[in-house]
Order: sequence, then structure tokens, then C-alpha cells
Amino acid sequence: MPHFEMIALDADDTLWHNERLYTQAQSHFVDLLAHYHEPDWIRARLNQTETKNMDHFGYGIKAFALSMIETSVELTEGRISGREIGAIVNLAKEMINARVELLDGVVDAVIQLAAAYPLMIITKGDLLDQERKIDRSGLRDYFIHIEIVTDKTRDIYAQLLARYAIHPGAFVMVGNSLRSDILPVLELGGSAVYIPYLTTWAHEIADLPAPDQPGFYQLETIGGLPALLQQINDSANSENKP
Amino acid sequence: MPHFEMIALDADDTLWHNERLYTQAQSHFVDLLAHYHEPDWIRARLNQTETKNMDHFGYGIKAFALSMIETSVELTEGRISGREIGAIVNLAKEMINARVELLDGVVDAVIQLAAAYPLMIITKGDLLDQERKIDRSGLRDYFIHIEIVTDKTRDIYAQLLARYAIHPGAFVMVGNSLRSDILPVLELGGSAVYIPYLTTWAHEIADLPAPDQPGFYQLETIGGLPALLQQINDSANSENKP
Repeated sequence: MPHFEMIALDADDTLWHNERLYTQAQSHFVDLLAHYHEPDWIRARLNQTETKNMDHFGYGIKAFALSMIETSVELTEGRISGREIGAIVNLAKEMINARVELLDGVVDAVIQLAAAYPLMIITKGDLLDQERKIDRSGLRDYFIHIEIVTDKTRDIYAQLLARYAIHPGAFVMVGNSLRSDILPVLELGGSAVYIPYLTTWAHEIADLPAPDQPGFYQLETIGGLPALLQQINDSANSENKP
Repeated sequence: MPHFEMIALDADDTLWHNERLYTQAQSHFVDLLAHYHEPDWIRARLNQTETKNMDHFGYGIKAFALSMIETSVELTEGRISGREIGAIVNLAKEMINARVELLDGVVDAVIQLAAAYPLMIITKGDLLDQERKIDRSGLRDYFIHIEIVTDKTRDIYAQLLARYAIHPGAFVMVGNSLRSDILPVLELGGSAVYIPYLTTWAHEIADLPAPDQPGFYQLETIGGLPALLQQINDSANSENKP
């Protein structure tokens, strides 16, 4: 009998590359403002503006574009040209229309997992943008639920588990953000598999759970996920034997 | 026995004023560009840009802000100043932080409806923005489900009805957009109550259903909704009598 009622996967930087789209756009932005300021100063100010605007604009490409535009106006004391602003709007459109590039091993892992467990995606960000990436990924049909949320807090996870009548102890969340995918799920008594991405957005950085924290697992790549879940299942079943 | 399993309400311009926020922002935008072009030309070009960007940016304030910025760059051939661009970004923030103003009669109607039927909100647009308005409206607790979707098509309604196991014949959608709230629901065999708002965004304009279309109702204000549903219920019950 499978121990898990639902395996939930994060999407950005867990199923497909995302952070690097932002890193690339930021490089173009720095180049664009290179005749006004030093690269490090531009990056620092953009990061400040993004953080300040998080409550207004939330996550996603449109929010990032508005923060780039605001930063460019501030850093140039209004001297930024319309042409340069137009280039930033185009950067945003290129990001929105970028190809979805799956991480290595994702297709195999998802196919194997879907054969063994109900799968869902829990992702945060811009609704249209996430829907579009799920469509382009070709993976939609492997997931029985798709939930796009404004933030991944303990309360939001609790609501989702209640909605789908999933027992926290039978729930696994898999993702690359300790802050969003791992810690809130462990707090609820669920299991969480942390698969770090190459880079972590400053906003998502958090401390690792204690190594003896029950339910916490870490993998290097998603390729190891089917075997890990099988192993957890087997050891749970052997513990439950009379 | 109540005939309806679920009454779903649209939010923007059905529960609270929304379109006028955009109209007001557009007026400020026209004023800002007044020394470059005629008001009508600015409005027409903004509308074109919005329509063109719909596929990239979707609905909502951030999308609208990016379209205003793009239009301002195009209409001034890049001569728009950074200061003016900054004013457009600020317009977007003011829209995002605007007070939620409920339409007349909404509170009474929602309280009465919630006492008689399960209620849900089905709204499209920006996730964070819609969540925030629902919170600020003070109405969240009257609704058992809240669904924020990228578009309101027949397929999306069909998915929602399946998710919550609602029979289309026992479903009522209430809203101010023929295109989004009324026509797709009638196509599915549900009932739909059209409550026109003062103004309709060009993108949402559609033809009225035929007057004898089963399941189609129209009201002047939401105040009449509890009585209308009661009346439909009563007549359905009397038809079902042996």
C-alpha cells in the first residue's frame, strides 16, 4: 500500500529553468544602464526596488519589468530615454515568450512518479505566466491538480491539503526553495524533498532544517526522486508490519 | 429543496467597482501625454496596445501599466521623459492600493444569498491583485470557494464544475460580462444572471443571448438577486410537483 496520498512538485527551477531567465534579463538591464552607473550598484538598486515592490506587484515577469523600469528612472534621475524604456518592455516580452527548458531528468522522473502516485503542481507567481509554462512544458497531463498561489506559506499549504482532503503525514512537497517548498510543509507535519537549484534568488534564501528533522530529505537532482520515495514507502511499510 | 448547488459571482464590477479605476488612470495618462497628442488618439493607441499585449501580459493592473508605458514610448517616438514614465509606474501603484468600493446593495445581497446557497467567486485577472481585493472587501468568509482564473471560457467553467462536482443545471453564474460570465455558462447548460455595469470594457463586449434562451436572466442591480433566485427555485419546485 503506498504511504503517500499526494506528491506535489514546485515548478520554477524544480521542473524547468526559471531563475536564469531573470539573471539574463538583469544582465541586459545592467548593460542598458552601463553609461549611467556601475554594474554592482545597478544590481543592488534593482534588488532593493524588487523587494520594496513585492507587496504591490508580487512575483513574476510583469512585476520584475515594472521594477526594472522604476529602477531605471530613479538611477538616471529621470534621464533614461523612451527608447531605453522600450528596450526594457521588450525584455519582459522576450522573457514571457521564452522557451520552457526542462531540467535534466524531469521527464523520466515525472513519468515514473505519475505511474506510482497522484501528482500535483504547487507553484507561486503570475497566473497567466505559470499556466503558459505548464502548457509549454508538455507535462500538464501527468498532474491531477495544478495550484498557482500568491505565496507558499504554512496557511496556504494547510488550505490546499484541506481542499483535497490530503493528510499532512501522507503529503510530500518537492522543490528548490527552503523558504517556500520545505519549511512550511515540515511545520505542518508533511515530508519535503529539497532539490537545490544552481542559484537561489536572494528573496528565497533560508536556513536548512536540522539534519535530524523528521520528513526532511535532500537530493542533488530530480532523477533520484522516484527511488527516494520508494525507499521511504518501503521503510514505512516495514515499520508498520505486525 | 433548493434547486441550486452553487451560486457563483464574478467580482470586478459585480461585487465592487473596478472599471472606473482604469478609466481614471487612463485620464491621467491622457493628461500626461497631452503635450504630445490629442486625447482621442492617445486612447485609441492605448487600446490597440492593450489588445496586442493581451496574449503576453493578460489582464490586470501590471499588464495595463506595461501597456501604458509601451504606448507612451511609441507615441512620443522615445521622447517621453523618465520622470513621466515614473508617473505611470506610480499610477499603477495607486491603482493597486486603491480602496475596494463595493457596489450598492452587495453586502445585503451576499449575506442573504450565503444564508440560502453555497457561494463561490469566479474572477479572472491578476492573482495577487484579486486576492488582495477579496481580502479588502470583507466578503471572503461568505464564499466557500474562490477561483481566480486566466480566462472565463466554456472549458474553464467545465473544469471548475467538475472539480467541485456541481451539475451544470444546478449552477448559476452572476456577472457583468456577457462574454465572460454569461454566454459560456449558458452553453454548458447552466443559468446565468447578467447585471450590466455602468460601462463595459471594449474587450468584454458581446451580443445579448436571445430573449427566450433558457437559463438567462437579467437584473438592474444585485439587490434583486436573492428574490430572483428564490422565484426560479419556487417555479422549478412547482414544476417538479407530482
